[in-house]
Amino acid sequence: MAGNRAWILKSRPEGLPDMSNFELRDIGAEPLEDGWIRVENKWLSVDPYMRGRMNDVKSYVPPFALGEPMQGGAVGKVVESRSPHFEVGETVFHMLGWRESAAGPASAFNKLPQMPVEDHQWLGNLGLTGATAYFGLLRVAEAKEGDIVFVSAAAGAVGSAVVQIAKAKGMTVIGSAGGADKCAWVRELGADAAIDYKDGPVVKSLLAAAPKGIDVYFDNVGGDHLDAAFAAARQNARFAICGMIENYNAGPPPAFRYIMRVIAARIMMKGFIYTDYMAEMGDFYRDMGGWVASGAVTGRETIHEGIETAPDAFLGLFKGENMGKMLVRL
Amino acid sequence: MAGNRAWILKSRPEGLPDMSNFELRDIGAEPLEDGWIRVENKWLSVDPYMRGRMNDVKSYVPPFALGEPMQGGAVGKVVESRSPHFEVGETVFHMLGWRESAAGPASAFNKLPQMPVEDHQWLGNLGLTGATAYFGLLRVAEAKEGDIVFVSAAAGAVGSAVVQIAKAKGMTVIGSAGGADKCAWVRELGADAAIDYKDGPVVKSLLAAAPKGIDVYFDNVGGDHLDAAFAAARQNARFAICGMIENYNAGPPPAFRYIMRVIAARIMMKGFIYTDYMAEMGDFYRDMGGWVASGAVTGRETIHEGIETAPDAFLGLFKGENMGKMLVRL
Repeated sequence: MAGNRAWILKSRPEGLPDMSNFELRDIGAEPLEDGWIRVENKWLSVDPYMRGRMNDVKSYVPPFALGEPMQGGAVGKVVESRSPHFEVGETVFHMLGWRESAAGPASAFNKLPQMPVEDHQWLGNLGLTGATAYFGLLRVAEAKEGDIVFVSAAAGAVGSAVVQIAKAKGMTVIGSAGGADKCAWVRELGADAAIDYKDGPVVKSLLAAAPKGIDVYFDNVGGDHLDAAFAAARQNARFAICGMIENYNAGPPPAFRYIMRVIAARIMMKGFIYTDYMAEMGDFYRDMGGWVASGAVTGRETIHEGIETAPDAFLGLFKGENMGKMLVRL
Repeated sequence: MAGNRAWILKSRPEGLPDMSNFELRDIGAEPLEDGWIRVENKWLSVDPYMRGRMNDVKSYVPPFALGEPMQGGAVGKVVESRSPHFEVGETVFHMLGWRESAAGPASAFNKLPQMPVEDHQWLGNLGLTGATAYFGLLRVAEAKEGDIVFVSAAAGAVGSAVVQIAKAKGMTVIGSAGGADKCAWVRELGADAAIDYKDGPVVKSLLAAAPKGIDVYFDNVGGDHLDAAFAAARQNARFAICGMIENYNAGPPPAFRYIMRVIAARIMMKGFIYTDYMAEMGDFYRDMGGWVASGAVTGRETIHEGIETAPDAFLGLFKGENMGKMLVRL
C-alpha cells in the first residue's frame, strides 16, 4: 500500500455539497499503539446521513471536523494487530471509512457474525441500512401482517430493505422511486405498487395506489412525500421518520398542506436512529440473516471503484444515482 | 319559551367564517317520542374544532349539514321526559348545542357526576376542554414530574387547564399567549414563563425561555409554534397534537424549518381527541374533580349573553378574544 489516502473535510457546504468541500490527502500510517490494530479497508459506505455531519451543528452524530479525515462505515481486513482480540486476516466492520487504511484501539472494531455472506453486505442488508429498515418498520412503526405500508426512496438501500421485510411479514407495500427503471426494480422486490415521484404529485399517486389509505409510512424523504402520507393516513397510522433527504440541503422550509390530519387520523410519528435498538441486534441478525440466506431479502449495489471516487459516490446519493446500496470498493 | 331558535349552517365558509355563514331560525319544538326527553339549554359551548365541522370534509367528527342546526356541547335542564332514566329538573350535558331547546332519545344525554361545581364547568375544566388537557398531557405525551412542558394558547380553555395540571404534577411550564394581559394571567395560573407570540418570533422566545429545551409540547396552534417546539425539543420529547387553530382557516400551508429535528431528538408526536380515552373518564373525574375542589385548577370564562351572540362568540375564538373558556349563556 503506497501511503494512506483519506478524504478530508476541506470546507463546510452551504446547501448541496460539491467537490470543493473535499480534499484527498495522504495521512500516512499512524504508529500502532499497544492494544491497537490496523485494517486495510476493502469497502466504504456512503450514506445520506453524512450530509448532516458536514454541518457544524450538534446532531445525533457529531459533526466532521474541518481539516480532518471524514468517517463512515467500512469493512476491511486486519493487516497488523497489537491486540489479543484480533488476528491478522480477520474481516471487521468499523466507522473509520473515507480512507484506505484505519488504525485504532481494538474496541473501535467489530468482529462480524459467522454467516455465509459477502463482505459488502455488512454495509448493506446486514449492516446500518438493513438494521435501519428492520427497526424502523417493526419497532418504531410497529408494522404488522396485513398493514398497508408506504415507503419512500424504495429503490434506495434502506427503502429496498423495507419493501422486502414488509413483504416477508405479509404486508401490502407501496414504494416510491424516481423513474421507470427504479420503479420496475421496486416491483421486482415484491412491492404491490410503485409510484414514480417524477411523474406527478406524490399525493395524487399515493391516493390512487392506496385507495384505502396507509397504516404505516417509512420516511426517507420528508417534504412532499411526508405530506402525501399525512393525506393518505388511516386511523392510528404510524410514521417512522428515518430521513428527510429532500431537506438535507438548503432550500425553502418544507410546507405541509395535510399536517392537520395528524389529529383526525391520530397519526403517531417518531424519529429514530438504528443505534437506539442496539440491545436488539440479536433479533436483527437472526431475522435478517434468515431472510438473506433464504433469498427473501436481496440486495443490489451501485459500486464506485477506488478511493478517488468516494465524493462522487456520496454526491450521487442526492441526485438519485444509486439503485440499492451505494458503495466504494477499494 | 317562545319558540325554539337555533343557529343553522347557511353556507360553508372559505377561510375565516363570517356572519353570512349562519342563520338564526325558529325550528319549533319537535314532538317528544317515547323514550325521549326535552332539555332547555342554559349554557352553550363554542370550540375551535367546530370550524372543521363547517367544511364538507370527513374528519374526526362528521360535518355539519347545510341548512340544519349546528351542534356542540351544551348544559341544560330537563323540562319534559318520556324516559324512565331522566326526571324533570335534572341537569344534563349533551351535544345538541347552538339552540335554545333540545329534544332526543335519552341515550343522547348524560347525567352529570355529583360534584359541588357550577353548571358551566361541565363545558370547561370538567368537560371537553379539561378532559382534552388531562388526557393529552398525561396520556398522549406521558408528561411526568420534572418535565419541561411547553403549551401554546395557554390562555385558552384547554391551554389554561394544561398549565395548571402540569404544575399540580410538579412540571416546569412555559405557556404562549397573545398580548401582555393574557401572558400575565398565564403566569398567575402558575406557569414558570409566558411567551407573548405577538412580541417576536416564537422560536426565539421559546429558546430563551427554555434554554435547556423542552420535554413535552402540547399543541393547540400548529404553524410557528409547532416549528418552535421542533427547534427546542430535547431527546425523546413527546408532542401531543390537540389542535392547530393557526391552520383551520385558509392560507398558505404551514412551513417547518426545524422538522428535521424529529430525527435527531427522536421526537414522538401524536394526534388525539379526548374521546379516545372515554374508558378512562373515571380517572379524569377523580383527579380533575380533586384539583377543582382544592383550587389547584381554576377556570376563567369569557361569557356572551343570549343565543343571538353564539356566532360572535365562536368567531371570537379565531381572533383570540377569549380568556379561558368561551361560553354562551342563555
